[in-house]
Amino acid sequence: MSNDFFPEQISTTEEKLLFIQELVKEQKDQEVCTLFGGLSENELAHILESFPQEDRKQLWTCVPETLRGEVLATLKEDARQGLLIGIEVEELTEITKDLDAQDTAEILHSLNAEVEASVIESMDDSRREEVQNVLAYEEDAVGRYMHTDTISIRENVKLEVVQRYLRMKNEIHKGIQVLMVVDADNRLLGTLHIVDLIKCDPESLVSETMEVPETVLDSMSAIEAAKQIRAKNLSFAAVVTECGTLMGQLTADDVLELTLEESGQTVMNMAGLDEEEDLFSPIKASVNGRTIWLGINLATAFLAAAVIGQFEDVIAQVVALAVLMPVVASMGGIAGSQTLTLTIRGLSMGKIGGSNRRVLFNKEFWIGIINGLIWAVVVALISYLWFEDSMISVVIGLAILINMVAAAVSGVVVPLVLKKFGQDPALSGAVILTTVTDVVGFLSFLGLATLLILK
Amino acid sequence: MSNDFFPEQISTTEEKLLFIQELVKEQKDQEVCTLFGGLSENELAHILESFPQEDRKQLWTCVPETLRGEVLATLKEDARQGLLIGIEVEELTEITKDLDAQDTAEILHSLNAEVEASVIESMDDSRREEVQNVLAYEEDAVGRYMHTDTISIRENVKLEVVQRYLRMKNEIHKGIQVLMVVDADNRLLGTLHIVDLIKCDPESLVSETMEVPETVLDSMSAIEAAKQIRAKNLSFAAVVTECGTLMGQLTADDVLELTLEESGQTVMNMAGLDEEEDLFSPIKASVNGRTIWLGINLATAFLAAAVIGQFEDVIAQVVALAVLMPVVASMGGIAGSQTLTLTIRGLSMGKIGGSNRRVLFNKEFWIGIINGLIWAVVVALISYLWFEDSMISVVIGLAILINMVAAAVSGVVVPLVLKKFGQDPALSGAVILTTVTDVVGFLSFLGLATLLILK
Repeated sequence: MSNDFFPEQISTTEEKLLFIQELVKEQKDQEVCTLFGGLSENELAHILESFPQEDRKQLWTCVPETLRGEVLATLKEDARQGLLIGIEVEELTEITKDLDAQDTAEILHSLNAEVEASVIESMDDSRREEVQNVLAYEEDAVGRYMHTDTISIRENVKLEVVQRYLRMKNEIHKGIQVLMVVDADNRLLGTLHIVDLIKCDPESLVSETMEVPETVLDSMSAIEAAKQIRAKNLSFAAVVTECGTLMGQLTADDVLELTLEESGQTVMNMAGLDEEEDLFSPIKASVNGRTIWLGINLATAFLAAAVIGQFEDVIAQVVALAVLMPVVASMGGIAGSQTLTLTIRGLSMGKIGGSNRRVLFNKEFWIGIINGLIWAVVVALISYLWFEDSMISVVIGLAILINMVAAAVSGVVVPLVLKKFGQDPALSGAVILTTVTDVVGFLSFLGLATLLILK
Repeated sequence: MSNDFFPEQISTTEEKLLFIQELVKEQKDQEVCTLFGGLSENELAHILESFPQEDRKQLWTCVPETLRGEVLATLKEDARQGLLIGIEVEELTEITKDLDAQDTAEILHSLNAEVEASVIESMDDSRREEVQNVLAYEEDAVGRYMHTDTISIRENVKLEVVQRYLRMKNEIHKGIQVLMVVDADNRLLGTLHIVDLIKCDPESLVSETMEVPETVLDSMSAIEAAKQIRAKNLSFAAVVTECGTLMGQLTADDVLELTLEESGQTVMNMAGLDEEEDLFSPIKASVNGRTIWLGINLATAFLAAAVIGQFEDVIAQVVALAVLMPVVASMGGIAGSQTLTLTIRGLSMGKIGGSNRRVLFNKEFWIGIINGLIWAVVVALISYLWFEDSMISVVIGLAILINMVAAAVSGVVVPLVLKKFGQDPALSGAVILTTVTDVVGFLSFLGLATLLILK
């Protein structure tokens, strides 16, 4: 990749970041501005997010004015809000002036209601209507993400005429792979691929060349739409209303962006993090965002403690039990999170449903039994070498077996049940699973000890 | 999405899966085959992976012959190997005949050496060379993923001539967005976008219209190349050797596939799963794949147990300590995994490096202190209500504070150190972090108890 202004040996994003850090440290602002002039909106957003909040304002002055709107729209919520604080209404109006309605809506969404109203107020009527139409869609709907810069043609013209029209109008750009064939009411009849415009006989009609369009609904979930487009190996879909009216398109770029968003959400949610938290979110926002999850975890931890509390007698007699009990909980926790991750991924890819749930359950159940047996023996042996008490070894072996089977079973069942009740399995699956493996682990280990060891 | 053979109300992948499951259960093989005729290779691979191993062989007979090679190449390793077992060398030769060299190499890679040699043997000389060239690349290199069906043109011809040439040769397809401009030695001079072929004056020369090409090296990591292409907001890059010779291209589809692969690897690795394990991998393979991780976890669990073992005296005197100690470990574990996930994601996106490491460390350190103080008070209060012993409350409060700060610190430091030593932080980060929070948790809680409570 050579057409930017970095020295030749610098190619990865990380190297670029280090290079810019160096310039910022040496206060070579002019050079930073020159480099920024050769970067895309994605790279600029990426670099801004890689700097601490306090540096971003300074760097922002180097972002080329023509890209500021797109960079703002690309940034994560927390980073965008940080930059928006210092920007005046007039500047925002200027920045969003040439943006498409979707990007504008994304930025407006991050403003407080008052500033948002002022910016909307400053738009001319047609643009205001356009932006408000976008804002009327649900936050995760296709209508919020689609591109509206499609090119419409009629079906009863020759390809050669279409070519001449395109050359004259000069509104076709490189992101456009297909032309939309519509009727007089703007209903989508078909799509004509740019390649066919070149390949096919210039004398043939659009109606003879066009294809049945691949479509998604403007009101559906954008992430679901991206999934459908991916599944079909398409790099594109037309966006239509329920009545078939053309609204825009989702391009390969949109599908990629939505895919990254989805996978990011899963990873962040599985760790109990807010998906909009960025590396340098303010401490206050980070603490707030993580509190809920720590609180829920505390409740479940005390639940596990309450279970142990029921067995104070046996622990007081055999302190070795207190020493070994975290081993039982820990092995169950890891085994469970393996099954859980597999199930969550399968669910998010739409691979689990109907009769294969039972097959998956059976498979994981048997893996639980086999792994349980293997590790029961290993743990029992190690415990025997340590405490030289065969009864303790028997108890811990049985508890490991029980807990690893329980882990496997709940690794499949918990996400399926969460999904059934409309919850995101990635969000609360891990915390519920850990609760199960802690409670079952302590209960089985200390319970068996009470039965078999307590005199 | 309407141009397949499913009933109209069925649109998501999951609904399609359920519909096919129903047909399979009712043994309506003919209808399954008809439906399969309308699906893409991605959808077919997806559906095969969603069925248990034993059903896949039967379903395979319904996969249209023209798509079998591409479906095989698309499947995950475990699933592909399961299907390849029953396929004869002759059939494999037939299946791979019309595949590109990259897909062929992907399939050959899953065969045992003997069958692989026989299939390669059956190829004609030029194809054998082509496939062996691909196999000579590292498994994760761009050369293994690139498309070689590029169209090359010369720089000194008119656009109109190019158009006529394309119409005549008829080898341009819808995946091609750009033409490659090369010299007599096949060195890449520039790229010409299909849209420009339509938009620009037909009388102008290729050399006047072409752009500086965006390139990646054939030998570099494909995931790294996809990252670069994404960062630049491109949907495409030409693949060249170090000497600038054109080898092929990476398309938007390839970037998407590589992005999914990368995010899948992270999620699977963080849970200690092999990235090629699929939902219905054979039990034996799954048990093997998960054993290493369970074994490592066992070692760390016994390390934590050994720490507790040092404090048997104090536990024997104050059994409440055994009841409460998992709370300390658990709160540290969750807080640590939040920081860890944020750091791992930042690293994998190339956002962390140089001077911002210290900023991140400081931020997480302070979050650790603040969260530590908040939860220390909460836990101390709950413990006091439970055991009515102010000394235990003081001890657990201090231990929570210490462990949550340790968790924050190691959540940043562990992945940075792993990366420094060339290890994948997603792979072993979580297990090391849990070890730290367990050991520090038990050590601080029981150690403080020994100092402050033990008589």
